[in-house]
Amino acid sequence: MQLLDKINNPSDIKDLSLSELNQLAAEIREFLINNISKTGGHLASNLGVVELTIALLYNFDFTKDKIVFDVGHQSYVYKILTDRKDKFNTLRQYKGLSGFPKREESSFDFFDTGHSSNSISASLGMARARDLKGEDYNVISVIGDGALTGGMVYEALNDLGFNHSKMLIILNDNEMSISLNVGGLQKCLNKVRLTPSYNKLKEKVHYKLDRKNSNKLVNIARKIKNSFKSLFFTPIFFEDLGIRYIGPVDGNNIKDLNKILRKIKNLNEPIVLHVVTTKGLGYLPALQNPNRFHAISKFDIKTGNISSKSSLTYSDVFGSSLVSLAKKDKRIVAITASMITGTGLSEFSEIFPNRIFDVGITEEHAVTLAGGMSANGLKPVFAVYSTFLQRGFDQLLMDVCLQNLPVVFAIDRSGLVGNDGKTHQGVFDLSYLNMMPNIEILAPKCVQELDALLEYAFSKNNPVAIRYPRGSNTLKLEPIKKIKSSKWENVSDGDTVVILATGKMVELACLAKEKIFKKYNPIIINALFIKPLDREYLKKIVKQNYNVLTLEDNNIIGGFGQQVLYELNNLGFRQKIKILGYQDKFIDHGTVDELLVQEHLDIDSIILEIKKLYRKKEN
Amino acid sequence: MQLLDKINNPSDIKDLSLSELNQLAAEIREFLINNISKTGGHLASNLGVVELTIALLYNFDFTKDKIVFDVGHQSYVYKILTDRKDKFNTLRQYKGLSGFPKREESSFDFFDTGHSSNSISASLGMARARDLKGEDYNVISVIGDGALTGGMVYEALNDLGFNHSKMLIILNDNEMSISLNVGGLQKCLNKVRLTPSYNKLKEKVHYKLDRKNSNKLVNIARKIKNSFKSLFFTPIFFEDLGIRYIGPVDGNNIKDLNKILRKIKNLNEPIVLHVVTTKGLGYLPALQNPNRFHAISKFDIKTGNISSKSSLTYSDVFGSSLVSLAKKDKRIVAITASMITGTGLSEFSEIFPNRIFDVGITEEHAVTLAGGMSANGLKPVFAVYSTFLQRGFDQLLMDVCLQNLPVVFAIDRSGLVGNDGKTHQGVFDLSYLNMMPNIEILAPKCVQELDALLEYAFSKNNPVAIRYPRGSNTLKLEPIKKIKSSKWENVSDGDTVVILATGKMVELACLAKEKIFKKYNPIIINALFIKPLDREYLKKIVKQNYNVLTLEDNNIIGGFGQQVLYELNNLGFRQKIKILGYQDKFIDHGTVDELLVQEHLDIDSIILEIKKLYRKKEN
Repeated sequence: MQLLDKINNPSDIKDLSLSELNQLAAEIREFLINNISKTGGHLASNLGVVELTIALLYNFDFTKDKIVFDVGHQSYVYKILTDRKDKFNTLRQYKGLSGFPKREESSFDFFDTGHSSNSISASLGMARARDLKGEDYNVISVIGDGALTGGMVYEALNDLGFNHSKMLIILNDNEMSISLNVGGLQKCLNKVRLTPSYNKLKEKVHYKLDRKNSNKLVNIARKIKNSFKSLFFTPIFFEDLGIRYIGPVDGNNIKDLNKILRKIKNLNEPIVLHVVTTKGLGYLPALQNPNRFHAISKFDIKTGNISSKSSLTYSDVFGSSLVSLAKKDKRIVAITASMITGTGLSEFSEIFPNRIFDVGITEEHAVTLAGGMSANGLKPVFAVYSTFLQRGFDQLLMDVCLQNLPVVFAIDRSGLVGNDGKTHQGVFDLSYLNMMPNIEILAPKCVQELDALLEYAFSKNNPVAIRYPRGSNTLKLEPIKKIKSSKWENVSDGDTVVILATGKMVELACLAKEKIFKKYNPIIINALFIKPLDREYLKKIVKQNYNVLTLEDNNIIGGFGQQVLYELNNLGFRQKIKILGYQDKFIDHGTVDELLVQEHLDIDSIILEIKKLYRKKEN
Repeated sequence: MQLLDKINNPSDIKDLSLSELNQLAAEIREFLINNISKTGGHLASNLGVVELTIALLYNFDFTKDKIVFDVGHQSYVYKILTDRKDKFNTLRQYKGLSGFPKREESSFDFFDTGHSSNSISASLGMARARDLKGEDYNVISVIGDGALTGGMVYEALNDLGFNHSKMLIILNDNEMSISLNVGGLQKCLNKVRLTPSYNKLKEKVHYKLDRKNSNKLVNIARKIKNSFKSLFFTPIFFEDLGIRYIGPVDGNNIKDLNKILRKIKNLNEPIVLHVVTTKGLGYLPALQNPNRFHAISKFDIKTGNISSKSSLTYSDVFGSSLVSLAKKDKRIVAITASMITGTGLSEFSEIFPNRIFDVGITEEHAVTLAGGMSANGLKPVFAVYSTFLQRGFDQLLMDVCLQNLPVVFAIDRSGLVGNDGKTHQGVFDLSYLNMMPNIEILAPKCVQELDALLEYAFSKNNPVAIRYPRGSNTLKLEPIKKIKSSKWENVSDGDTVVILATGKMVELACLAKEKIFKKYNPIIINALFIKPLDREYLKKIVKQNYNVLTLEDNNIIGGFGQQVLYELNNLGFRQKIKILGYQDKFIDHGTVDELLVQEHLDIDSIILEIKKLYRKKEN
C-alpha cells in the first residue's frame, strides 16, 4: 500500500501519474477485499467502480463539485479516497462508518442515499440551486443500470431534458442489477452501438480479461461480450429527452476515463456518460459470482466462502411455504422487485417460471400490477423488503386497500435489519400499514409459524400483510399450525401483568420471563394479529384489570402499541400500560443486538419494564 | 335525445349506423353539459372523449373485455353508455354516482382509479391474469398525455415491453394535462410525424374547427395545429421498448376510430394507439378555456360562468403569503406537480417565473428534487394536495426527513375534500407524517393564520408540513400573527373539559361551544402544532385533571388524537379522553358537511361528546 498510504485527501490524487493511478487502483482493490472480508458489505459493485471513482476524483474537485451515488452501496472507494480510509475497518459496524453515503459523516458526501433511482432528482435539485445562486461547479449523479428501471429516474430525466440544467449523469452499466436486469429499457441499454469507440472498448475488455489465466474468466468475458454484440444501444432515448449521450466508455480504464471526463466537464448541458464496468473485477470469486458478492457477510479471502448459514431463515420458510401452497392453488403468483434471491423466491422461480414476475426496482408498479392481477382472479403475493415497500405506499392504499383486493404482502426485513442502517431499517411498516383500511397485518412469532400465516393470508378475500424480520430465531417456540380465527395466542400463562408481543418480540418476552420467573409471572401473548386487534382479549384485559406491556419491532408512532392503547382507552381501561418500540428517530447501523440495547428493547430493558408494571400493580 | 334514450346497454350501440353514432355523440355532449352544469365535475376532458368512448364500446365487448381509465375523470361517457345514464344526475352527490370508476358501482368498471399514471400497471396485471387462466379477451388502458409524466407509466411500459402481453394502450393526447404539459417526453409526444395519416388528420382538425363561425375557435385551432407542426413524434420510444405504436388517429372521428380499432383488436401484442382529441370540444367556453373546465363547479350553460367564489381560500392565502415571503428571501422556490392553479401558485409563477418548477405529475421526483435543492441551500416549498403527496411517501421519509432537510410542504386539500370522494380525501396525511422523524406538522385554524405558519416554516432548519383544507372558513377567528414557539393557543377559556382541536376543527369546536355555552364551558385549544405536541400543555392537563376531547380532520389511526393519548399515558394521565376523527375506512363522496354528519364529526356530534365528558367529570 505504498501509494494508498499517502492519500489523505482527494487532492493528493491529482499529482499522480497514470501508472501511479493504476497502481492505486490495484492497492484499493486489495484494501477493499481485505476489509470487506472482515466487515461484510457490498464487494462486487465496489470492485467494479475503482477506476471510475479514481478518475472522478482526479478530474473533479469535490470541495466545490458535488456527487450523488444512486443507492450508494458503490461509494466505498469514494469514502476511502476522500477522508475515511482510516475508519474503513469500522464499515457497517456499530458507531462506525456507514455502508452508504452520509452527509453527517463527511463534507464530501452531499446526499444520503440507500433506496434506488433517486439520485438524478437529488442532483437536479442541487444543479438548480447552483444556477439560481449564480454559482459554477459540476453536479454528478452515478447510477447503475439496474436503478434505471425505477420510474423516478424517468420523471427526473424528463424534467432535466425540458429544463436543461448542466449536470453529468454517469450511467454505470455493469450488466446486472441485484439479481437480473429487467425490461425493455434494459434491452436498450445493453445495445452497445458498434462504433469505433465501442470496438476499441471490446478489444480492451477482451485483452484485459484474456490476460488472466483462467478459463472461467474468459468464459465470463465471452458472455459479457456476447450480450454487447447481440444488441445495440440507441442514444436516441436520451437525446430525444434533450440530454446528450456520450459513450460507451471502458469504466475500468483510467486513461480512457480521464480523456473523456476532461473533455466533458466543461460542457454546459445535461450529459449522460455511459461507462461499462465489470462487477467484481480483480477478485475471481466475485467476478464469477457477482450476485453472491453483491452484499456479502464476512468471507474467507482465499476461497471466497462465507461462514455457512446457521439456521433456517424467514425468507427460506417463505420460499418453501409458497412453493407448496402454489402447487395446490394455480392462482398463486409471485411478484418481486429485483429480489428473487433476497426474498427467498429462487426455488419458486425455478418450479414456476411462468408464475413469477420480476419487474425490476419498481415497487410502485409491482403493487398496482398485483392489484390488477387480483382484480382479475389471481392470488398474487408481492415479496418485498419492508423499507422498499415504502415506495409503493400510495399504490398499496389506493390500488389495493381501497378496492379491498386480496393481495398478499410478504414483508421481509421488517424491524431492525442491522448493518445496513438508517435507510434500510424496516421499522415503519406497522405504522404505514395500520392506517390503511381493509388490510390485515400479521407477524409470526417464529420461523416455523410463517407457514400457517401464509396459508391463512391466501385464504382471505382482502389484502393481507405478513411482516417478518431478517434472519431467524434462536428459541424453539411451538408454532401455530393452522389459523382458524383472528385470535391471539396465549404463549405463557401468568398473573396480573400481560405482555402483548408481536413477531420476534415474543421470543424476547419469553427470554425475559425465563430470567425473572422465580419472582414475576407475566402472561405472554403472541399478538400475531396486529390488525385487526383481538378485541375479545382486550376486553378481557380490561375486565381482569391487568397491567399491560406492549412490545413491537417497529416505531412507536402509529404502531401496534398505540392501537392497543387506543382500543383499551375506548373500552374504559383504567390500569397501567407501557408501550415499547422505537422512538421517533432514524436508527443507525450496528448489529441487531447492539441496536436493541441502544433502543432499550433488549431483554434486560424488557425485564425492567415488567418489574415496573408489577410495582405499579402493588401500589 | 332520441337515440340516447334508447341506449340502456352497451350492446344497444352495436346496431347503430355511423350517422347514428355521430348523432349519439352530439346527444351525449348535450347530456354532459346539461348535467355537469348542475352537478359540477370534469367537463372538458369528457367532452373530448365522447367519440373515443363510443368507438370503444362499439368495437369491444365489455362483458368480456376490460378497460381501465387512468385517473378516471374521463369516464363519464363510459358511465352514461354502460349502465348509469339514469343515475347520472346524482354524479358526485352524496350517495350518488362517483366521479371516478368504481367496481362496486357497476360490473363494467374493472379497476378504481383516481390517482394518475397507474392504469398500465393495473391493465398489465389483468392481462397477465387472463393469459395465465388461458382466457381470451382484450384489456385496454386509456391514458392521457399528462399522466405520461408519472414514473409508474414507465415502470409498467418497461415491464410490458419485456414480457409482451397482449394489451391495448390508448394514449389520449389532448395536448394538455391539468395545467401545463411538462418535460422532454411531452415534447416527444407532441411531435406528430408528418406522415400521410398525419396530414389527413391535420386537414380534418382544420375542417372540423373551421366550420364553426368563431374567430376565437379558429385561433385555438391554429394554436393546436402549430404545436403539431413545429414538432415531430417518434414512435421509436415505444418501439424500442418492444411496444407497437400506431397513430396518430383523430380521436374525435368515429369513422376513423372504428377503422383502426377493428384492425388492431385482434393483434396479439402490446399496442399503443395514439389518438388526438380536443378537450372541451362541442362547448365553446370549455374549448376556449379547457383549464377552467377541467374540474368545474356548477355553471351557467349560456355564459359558462361559475357562481363567483365567495371568500378567500386557503390556496389563495398560501399563494399571496408565498409571494411576499419570496420577495424578502431569494432562496425561496416553489415546486408543483402540475397544480399551479389548484395550489394557488399562479401569481407566484408570474412574478417569479425562474423560481417555480412545475415538474409534471411526479410527486416522487418533486419531493427528492426539493431535497436536493434544500441540501444545496435553497428553501423549497412543495405545494401539493394531501392525497397526491402519498405518492412521495418514501421520498419524504428517506430523502427529506432522514437528512433533516429544511423543505416546506404546503399540503392543500387536507381532510375531507367532498365530491371527489374516496380517492381524493386527504384524511391520511397526519398519519403518514406523524410517523416521520424530524418533521414538524402544523395546521392553521383559519385562512388568515396560514400567513404566520408559512413564515414560521421557512424560518426552520428541518422539514415542516403545513396542512390545510379545501376552501375557506366561515367563522371569523382571530389569527395568530407571529409564531414564537411551538406552543398551542388558548382560543377559549373554560373549566374542566378541554378540547384539543387541530386546523379547521377549531372552528367547529367554537361553533359547538356557542350552542351549549349556557350549560357547558369547555376550554378550546388551537393545537396548531400537531408535531411536536405542546408537552407543557399536556402536563398541565394531567395536573389539572381535565377531561380531554381531541378533534382532527384525519383518520384516527396514527393521527393527532392517538399521539395525544400516547403522551398523556406516558405522563400518567388518569382522566377521560375521547378521540374524534375518521374511522378506519374509505370515505365516499358528498359535500363536506354531509360527510361530517355521516362521520359524527359535525357540530352536534361534537356537542354530544362534550356533554359525555362533562357527565363523566361529574361521576
